[in-house]
Amino acid sequence: MVRYVYDFQDGGRDLAGLLGGKGANLAEMTRLGLPVPPGFIVSTEACRAFLATGEEPKGMSAEVSRHLSALETGVGRLLGQGDDPLLVSVRSGARFSMPGMMETVLDIGLNDDSVLGLAKVSGSERFAWDSYRRLVHMYGSTVMGVDPALFDEAMTLLKDAREAPDDLHLDASDLAWLVETYKSLIRNETGRDFPQSPAQQLQQAILAVFRSWNAERAVLYRRRERIPDDLGTAVTVQRMVFGNLGPDSGSGVAFTRDPATGRPGLYGDYLPNAQGEDVVSGVRDAVPLAELERLDPRSYRQLRDHAQTLERHYRDLCDIEFTIERGTLWMLQTRVGKRTAEAAFAIATELVQEGLIGSDEGLARVSGDGLARLMFPRFDTTATGETLARGVPASPGAAVGAAVFDSAEAVRRAAADEKVVLVREETTPDDLPGMVAAQAVLTGRGGKTSHAAVVARGMGKVCVCGAQDITVNAQARRFTARDGIVVEEGTVISVDGSTGDVFLGAVPLVASATMRYLESGEQADSVVCAVARALDHADSVRRLEVRANADTPEDAARARRFGAQGVGLCRTEHMFLGERRKLVEAMILARTDADRDRALAALLPLQRRDFTGILEAMDGFPVTIRLLDPPLHEFLPDRTDLAVRIAAAEATGQQPEAHHVELLAAVNRMHEENPMLGLRGVRLGLVVPGLVAMQVRAIAEGVVERTRASGSPHAEIMVPLVGAVEELRLAREEVVRVLTEVGEETGTPVHCPVGTMIELPRAALTAGRIAEEAEFFSFGTNDLTQTTWGFSRDDVEAAFFSAYLDKGVFAASPFETLDREGVGRLVRIAVEEGRAARPDLETGVCGEHGGDPESIHFFHEVGLDYVSCSPFRVPVARLEAGRAALPDMDTSDSR
Amino acid sequence: MVRYVYDFQDGGRDLAGLLGGKGANLAEMTRLGLPVPPGFIVSTEACRAFLATGEEPKGMSAEVSRHLSALETGVGRLLGQGDDPLLVSVRSGARFSMPGMMETVLDIGLNDDSVLGLAKVSGSERFAWDSYRRLVHMYGSTVMGVDPALFDEAMTLLKDAREAPDDLHLDASDLAWLVETYKSLIRNETGRDFPQSPAQQLQQAILAVFRSWNAERAVLYRRRERIPDDLGTAVTVQRMVFGNLGPDSGSGVAFTRDPATGRPGLYGDYLPNAQGEDVVSGVRDAVPLAELERLDPRSYRQLRDHAQTLERHYRDLCDIEFTIERGTLWMLQTRVGKRTAEAAFAIATELVQEGLIGSDEGLARVSGDGLARLMFPRFDTTATGETLARGVPASPGAAVGAAVFDSAEAVRRAAADEKVVLVREETTPDDLPGMVAAQAVLTGRGGKTSHAAVVARGMGKVCVCGAQDITVNAQARRFTARDGIVVEEGTVISVDGSTGDVFLGAVPLVASATMRYLESGEQADSVVCAVARALDHADSVRRLEVRANADTPEDAARARRFGAQGVGLCRTEHMFLGERRKLVEAMILARTDADRDRALAALLPLQRRDFTGILEAMDGFPVTIRLLDPPLHEFLPDRTDLAVRIAAAEATGQQPEAHHVELLAAVNRMHEENPMLGLRGVRLGLVVPGLVAMQVRAIAEGVVERTRASGSPHAEIMVPLVGAVEELRLAREEVVRVLTEVGEETGTPVHCPVGTMIELPRAALTAGRIAEEAEFFSFGTNDLTQTTWGFSRDDVEAAFFSAYLDKGVFAASPFETLDREGVGRLVRIAVEEGRAARPDLETGVCGEHGGDPESIHFFHEVGLDYVSCSPFRVPVARLEAGRAALPDMDTSDSR
Repeated sequence: MVRYVYDFQDGGRDLAGLLGGKGANLAEMTRLGLPVPPGFIVSTEACRAFLATGEEPKGMSAEVSRHLSALETGVGRLLGQGDDPLLVSVRSGARFSMPGMMETVLDIGLNDDSVLGLAKVSGSERFAWDSYRRLVHMYGSTVMGVDPALFDEAMTLLKDAREAPDDLHLDASDLAWLVETYKSLIRNETGRDFPQSPAQQLQQAILAVFRSWNAERAVLYRRRERIPDDLGTAVTVQRMVFGNLGPDSGSGVAFTRDPATGRPGLYGDYLPNAQGEDVVSGVRDAVPLAELERLDPRSYRQLRDHAQTLERHYRDLCDIEFTIERGTLWMLQTRVGKRTAEAAFAIATELVQEGLIGSDEGLARVSGDGLARLMFPRFDTTATGETLARGVPASPGAAVGAAVFDSAEAVRRAAADEKVVLVREETTPDDLPGMVAAQAVLTGRGGKTSHAAVVARGMGKVCVCGAQDITVNAQARRFTARDGIVVEEGTVISVDGSTGDVFLGAVPLVASATMRYLESGEQADSVVCAVARALDHADSVRRLEVRANADTPEDAARARRFGAQGVGLCRTEHMFLGERRKLVEAMILARTDADRDRALAALLPLQRRDFTGILEAMDGFPVTIRLLDPPLHEFLPDRTDLAVRIAAAEATGQQPEAHHVELLAAVNRMHEENPMLGLRGVRLGLVVPGLVAMQVRAIAEGVVERTRASGSPHAEIMVPLVGAVEELRLAREEVVRVLTEVGEETGTPVHCPVGTMIELPRAALTAGRIAEEAEFFSFGTNDLTQTTWGFSRDDVEAAFFSAYLDKGVFAASPFETLDREGVGRLVRIAVEEGRAARPDLETGVCGEHGGDPESIHFFHEVGLDYVSCSPFRVPVARLEAGRAALPDMDTSDSR
Repeated sequence: MVRYVYDFQDGGRDLAGLLGGKGANLAEMTRLGLPVPPGFIVSTEACRAFLATGEEPKGMSAEVSRHLSALETGVGRLLGQGDDPLLVSVRSGARFSMPGMMETVLDIGLNDDSVLGLAKVSGSERFAWDSYRRLVHMYGSTVMGVDPALFDEAMTLLKDAREAPDDLHLDASDLAWLVETYKSLIRNETGRDFPQSPAQQLQQAILAVFRSWNAERAVLYRRRERIPDDLGTAVTVQRMVFGNLGPDSGSGVAFTRDPATGRPGLYGDYLPNAQGEDVVSGVRDAVPLAELERLDPRSYRQLRDHAQTLERHYRDLCDIEFTIERGTLWMLQTRVGKRTAEAAFAIATELVQEGLIGSDEGLARVSGDGLARLMFPRFDTTATGETLARGVPASPGAAVGAAVFDSAEAVRRAAADEKVVLVREETTPDDLPGMVAAQAVLTGRGGKTSHAAVVARGMGKVCVCGAQDITVNAQARRFTARDGIVVEEGTVISVDGSTGDVFLGAVPLVASATMRYLESGEQADSVVCAVARALDHADSVRRLEVRANADTPEDAARARRFGAQGVGLCRTEHMFLGERRKLVEAMILARTDADRDRALAALLPLQRRDFTGILEAMDGFPVTIRLLDPPLHEFLPDRTDLAVRIAAAEATGQQPEAHHVELLAAVNRMHEENPMLGLRGVRLGLVVPGLVAMQVRAIAEGVVERTRASGSPHAEIMVPLVGAVEELRLAREEVVRVLTEVGEETGTPVHCPVGTMIELPRAALTAGRIAEEAEFFSFGTNDLTQTTWGFSRDDVEAAFFSAYLDKGVFAASPFETLDREGVGRLVRIAVEEGRAARPDLETGVCGEHGGDPESIHFFHEVGLDYVSCSPFRVPVARLEAGRAALPDMDTSDSR
C-alpha cells in the first residue's frame, strides 16, 4: 500500500522530491536533534494522485489522522481543543522553490471555542481574535474560494468606523466582530459555514494547497522557470509557535557565515516580539543578531551551536529561520544559503582548508558566472547618480566617460586621454575604432546579440544596448533621456553593463582585484587567493582545452595571459576595415580580373602582417584562422543612404557624385534579401577568383616569416559556412595548392591543418562525409543556432525574445546558452559521425557559447577537445571546464 | 584467381557493372545469336586494379593474349598479320554512359606491313593508308601523349602543299607520306617509335583507355553527373568491320520504333559506303532506312528481324548501330533507346497491350517529367521567330502576347481580351494581379526560385526569368534585347518557358491534348489514351495521397478536376493583398489596441469569404489553412523608395507627404536584416494581439457557414514556423479558444485538427516533443531547405547555383529536388520521432518538392501520408506517387 504521510522523523534532505524542499530540510533538522516544532508531511505523491483524480487518495485521510494523533500525543495538546489548543500551520513545499506561488493556511485549529483557550494561554485576547480573524480570512479565500477583496472591504469599513489608521488600532472586540462578519460573508457567498471542526479545517486546507499547484500564477511561474508541471507539491503540517507573545519572544533569520563576504561567524537579523513574516516583510526594523546575544544569551548560544551543527552537517553556508517563543528557541526552516560571488569563492576555499569538503567539491561550489562578476569593476553602490535610462545589460562592468556620438570623436578624445562613452542609435562595423577607444558603448536599439553587444563582449567592453528611454540625435550631438533630460556631447555619464543602468555624472568605481590578479598574478586579498586556488584546481582536472577568439595580436597576448591555450577563432573580416576599406571597395568594384588582382595584391602584405603578429603572440600554440566570411556588400555603404544622397542631388538639379552612383549600382547588384543566408563564407571563396588564394598566401607567408624568426607558428586554416563536403573539397584543393606554392617559393615547407566550421544544420547532418576532407571541426554555434531555429540574431532578440522568455518558450536565449535539444543534438551528431569517419578529428567550439558556463558543461559531455571564447571569458571557461570534469558532482544549480 | 577478361559469350546485360554498358549489351546480343563482330571485354575490375597500383594487374596480359588467340582462331585471321590482317577497335565503356569523355583507338593491328595486306583485301590503297594514318594519330596522342595539334599541323601543311580543300582530296601516297611524318613526330617528341607490334599496340591501347578514366574532363564530367570516381571503365576489344568498302557497304542507326511518336516499325537512317562515325557526325546526309530495303533487301530484312528480336528481348524500344560490310550485316551496339514523352506513353501502353510487359512495368516506363511536358502547349518547331533573349526556363509551356510593363496595364489589356506578357526587371507581390492577367512572365533578374518563377509555377503560368540579354525600362515602357533590338509596349512576343527562349512576334502554338483531357476527360488521341491509362494505374497502386497548394476557390476547383484529394496548403497572405492592403497597413500602423482591433475586424468578413469559397470548392476533402506567415513589413512599401521620395521632397524645400513619413518610420522600426529569419510565422501570431484570433474566427465562421449550407467542410489549421513545442502549445490554446467561442456563439460545434509546418531544423530535431501538440505535420521543404543549407532562395540561386552545379557541389538545385542526405535526413527523423510520440500523426509535404518526381519517391519511401503541390503538378504527382509504389522496380533513371 502506498504511504502518503511522513513524520519529520521519517524523512531527510535526500527525499526532497517526495517531501518538498521545506519538508525535507525540516525532517533533516529533526533527525539532527535540533528543536523543530513537531509535524508531518503529506507527500507530493498524494498531491499528484489528488490532481489526477480530483479526489483525495484512498487512505490519505486516515494517515493524516494517525499522524495528527501522534503529534497531539507528543505535544500533549489536542488540535483546536480545550484551554490550550494545538494550532498548526499548513504550508506548501515543492521540490523546487516557488516563492509565494502557492497557498498557506496558518492557525488551523481555531474556532469559536478554542479562540477563548488561546486567549487564556497567550494572555492576550487581542492576539487570539487577531489569529482567528486571520484564519477565517485565509481559509475563506484559499479553501472556500471567497474573493479576498470582500474581506478586505469589511476590514476597511470597520477601520473607517473606528477611525483606525491600521489594524493594530483595532481591539479584541473589533476583531471578534470582524470574525463574525467574515463568517457571514462566507455563508452568503458559498452557502456554507466556516467549519468549526479543526479536523475538517486541516483536511480541507491540505487539499486547497494541493489545488494551488495548478493556480494560474503557479503554472505561469513554472512555465517561465521550466519546472515540470507534473511534480506536485508536498504539504507540511506543523505545530504553530509564536514569536509575538511578548518581549521574551521574537523571530529572526540567520546565516552560518556572512553571505556577502563569506567571513565565518553567525550573521543575521532579529526582531523581538514578532512573527517570521514580520521580519521578512520589514514592517519594523530588525536588529543585528549580536543584539540577541544581549537580549537572550541562552537562545543566542543555542542558535550559534545549531548553526554550527547545520554548517558541519550540510558542509556549506546555511540560512535559518527561527522563532523564540517565551524564551524557547525553535528552528523553523533551513536550507543552503545564497551568497555573493566573493563569498562563494571565500567559503569554498575555507571549507576545503577546514577539511569539511574536498578540492573537487570546493570547485563545484563556485561558478564561472561568479568569477565573471568578480572580474568587472563595479560602481560603488553607496553612491548614486540620476538615472538616465535602463537598457539591456549586454556586456557587464561599469564605466564612466564623456558621451560622444561618433567613432571619430571617440578616437579623437581618447587620443587626448579623455575617457568616453560611445552613444549610438545602433552600431555598425564602422564604429569599431570608436568602440575600441571608448570605455563603454550605449545604444538605443538592439538586444543582447546586436552588433554592439557582441563586439563589446568580445572586447570585454561595457555595453548597455536597446535603452529605449533614449533618443539619439547624432547630427545634433546629443541624446534625450528619461524625463526629457538632454545630454549634450561631452557630458559625463556612467554606464553599468551588469544592470543596464545609465546615470548622469560620474559614479565612483570600485576596481577589480580579481582582474589585477589575472593580468599580473598579484593576489591582493583572500577572495583573490580563493579565485586562484579554484582556477588552479580547475586547470588540474579539466579535459577541455580553452582557447580564445582573438583577431589582433593584443587580444591574443591578453588571452594568453588569461590562460588561453591557443586562438580558436581568428576572424579575418576585421582586418578588412578602416583604411583598408578602400582596397576592399576596389576589389569589389573591379571590372577586370587585373583590377581585382591588383586590389588583392595590395591587401596581401597587410594581411600577412596581421597574421604574423598573432602567430607571434600565440607562439607555440595553435591559431585557427577563418577565411573571409561575411558577404562582400557588407563592406560597401548603406543602400538607402546612397539612394537618398543621389536623389537629393538630382532633385536640386545637381549631378550626383559619380562614385556614389557607381557604389549604388554595386550595392544594388549585390543586394541580398537575407545576407545571412547569401553569398558568403566558402561560397564567396568559390566564386570570387583569387580571394582564398590571397588569404592563404598571407597566412603561409606569415608562417614562413615566423619560422625563419625561430618561432613556432601553428596556423590552422578554417573554411566557413560549409554545407556539403564538395565545397570543402574544392576550397581545400585551393588552400593546399597555395601552401605548396609558397613552400616551394620560399624553400620552407608550410603545413597547416585544414578544417571547417560546422555552422549549418546540413554540415552537422553530413559530418561523416565532411570529415573526409576536414582535419578539424569548429562548431560555429552562433550561426548554427540561427539556422537551426531560423532566428536572425540581429532581428529577433529585440523583436520577441523577452515575450518568449515570459511565455516560457525558452528558459534562456539560445544565443546565450546552447539549446541542447535542437542545436545540441546537431553538435552531438556531428561529433559522433565526424569521429567515426576520422578518429583523430579535432573538435572545438568557437561560438559565443564557448564562454557560457552551462554550454561548456554540454561541450564537455559531448566530448569536444576545446572551447574557444573571447579573451575575457577565458578564466570563466577554464573554471567551468574544470567543474564540468568533476566526477558525479551536481554543479548545475549552484550558480 | 581473379578473372579480368570476358568473351562476349561469357557476359550479358546484367553485368554492366563489370563489363560496362556497351560491353554488356554486345555480350547480350552475341548470346541472342545476332551477328556481332566477335571480341572480348577487359573488366572494370582490371581498370580499378591498374589505377590503384599504376601497374597492369598480374595475369591480365596473359588473359588478353588468350582471348585474342581465340578471337583470331574464330575469325581465321591474325592480328595485324599477313595479306588479310585482323584489325580491332579498343573502346571504353563504363557502367554509366560518359559520351566522348574517354579514349578510343581504332584500327589496332595496322603497321608498315599489314597496311599493304589491308590495301589488297579492301581493294583500296587509299582506304588502307587512311586507316593507318588515323591509327598513328590516335595512338600517338592517346597512348604516347603527343600533343594532337602537332599531327593536325602536319596535315594542314600537307593540304596546303597539295592545295587540297579537305583530306578527302589527299591520295594514297599523300597519306603514306603523312604516316611517315607522324611517325617521325612521335620519335622526336617521345624518343620512342610507333610500335610495329600489333600485340604491343593492343596492350598499350587498353592501358591508355584505363588511364583516360582519370583524365581531367572525365573527372569533371563525373563530378557534375555525380558518378562515383571509383567505378573504373571496362575496355571492349572487337574485330573492326568496315562500312566504307564500297556501294555494298554502309552504316546506320535504327530504332525498333519511332522514338518521336512511339509508332511501331523499324525507324532510322542509313548512309551507304560510310563508317558509323560518319552517320553520327552528319558529314553526309543519311537516307531513311526504307531506302536500305531497296538497296539491300536481304540486309534490311535481317535488320528488321534482329530489331524485333531485340525489342522482344529487352521488352522496350532499342536503338541499334549497325554496319554492312560488303553485303554482310553486323550489329555494333544496342541499348534501350531514348524517346520523347509522347513516345514513352504510347510505347508503354502498346507493350502492355502486346503482353510484353505488365501494367506496373508500363507505369515504370513513363515519368512525371514526361507528363508535365505533355501538359504544356508548345511552339510549332517548324516556325521560328527572331530570338530576343534566352533566360532561365522557370515555368514550362509556350505563350504569346503583347509586352506590358506593369501590373495595371496587364490587367487593363487582359480585361479587353488582349493576350499579354508581363515584362519586369523582377516581380514582387504587387505584381500578382498582372501575373494572373498575363499569359507569361518575363524577367531580367532572378533564378528558378525567384518570386516570378515560384508564383508562375504555382499558377501554371509560363515564365522565363533572369534573361540577362534584356534591360527593362518600365518608365519608358520598353525593353532592350539581344543585338540592341528595342521592344516597345504592345509589341507581340513569344515566350517558351520550356527552353527559356524569347522570340519577337507570334510563333504559332500547338495546343496540348493532354491538358484538354485533364480538364474535360476528352481522350483525343492514342497518346492521351496512354496518359489516361498510366494515370489510372498510378491511382490504383499509389499509397501517397495527392493534395494541392491552392489559395483561391478557382485554384482549388482546378486542382480537384486534376485529381487532388484536398488542399494541402492554403496560404493566407495572398488574401492580404490588393485592395485589402490598406486594411493591413492600418493594422500595422495602429497606435492603439482599438485601432488594431478595428482593422482586424474589417479584414474578418473578407477572410471568411475566401475560406468559405475554398471549402466549397474542396467540399468533402481536407483543406489545410496556414495562418499568416510572412513578416508584416512585407505588406509595407520599400524602404529605399520611401526614403528617396522624402529626400527628394526635402531637397527641393517641399514638405514630404505625412503618410510617407509615417510609413517610413514604420518600415524603419520593423526593418529586418534577414526577414526570412525574423518576426514571422507563429512568432508574429504570439506577439501581435488579435491576429491569430481573427484568422481562426474567419476559418471557424467559414466552416459554420458551409455546414449550414449542408456542405462537408474539413478545415485543418496549420501553424507556421514552429521551432519549439511551447510555441505550438501557446498558438494551439488560442486556436482552440476561438474555435470553442465560435462554436458556442453559433451553436454549431467546430472541430478543426491543429497541426504545424515542419520547416525549421529544430522542429524536425524535436519532432517527438512537437507531436504532443500537433495532430499533423506538414513539411515545408522550401523553408527547411533554406535553413538546413543556410540558403536564401531569393539570393543564392542567381548568385552561385550555376557555379555550384558546374563544380558538382550538387547535381540538382536542392530547391528543385529534395536533398536526401541533409534535408531528407531531417524529414526522416521528424516522421519517425513524430509517429513514435503520436501514432496517428498525419504527415505530408507542402513545399515545391511535393510536385518533383524524385522527391515524391523519397516521400513515399519515408512513409508520408500525402504530398501537396501546385494544381498543375497534381497529375504529375499522381503518376509519380504510383511509380514510387511499384514493387522493386527501377524507376530512377527512365526519365
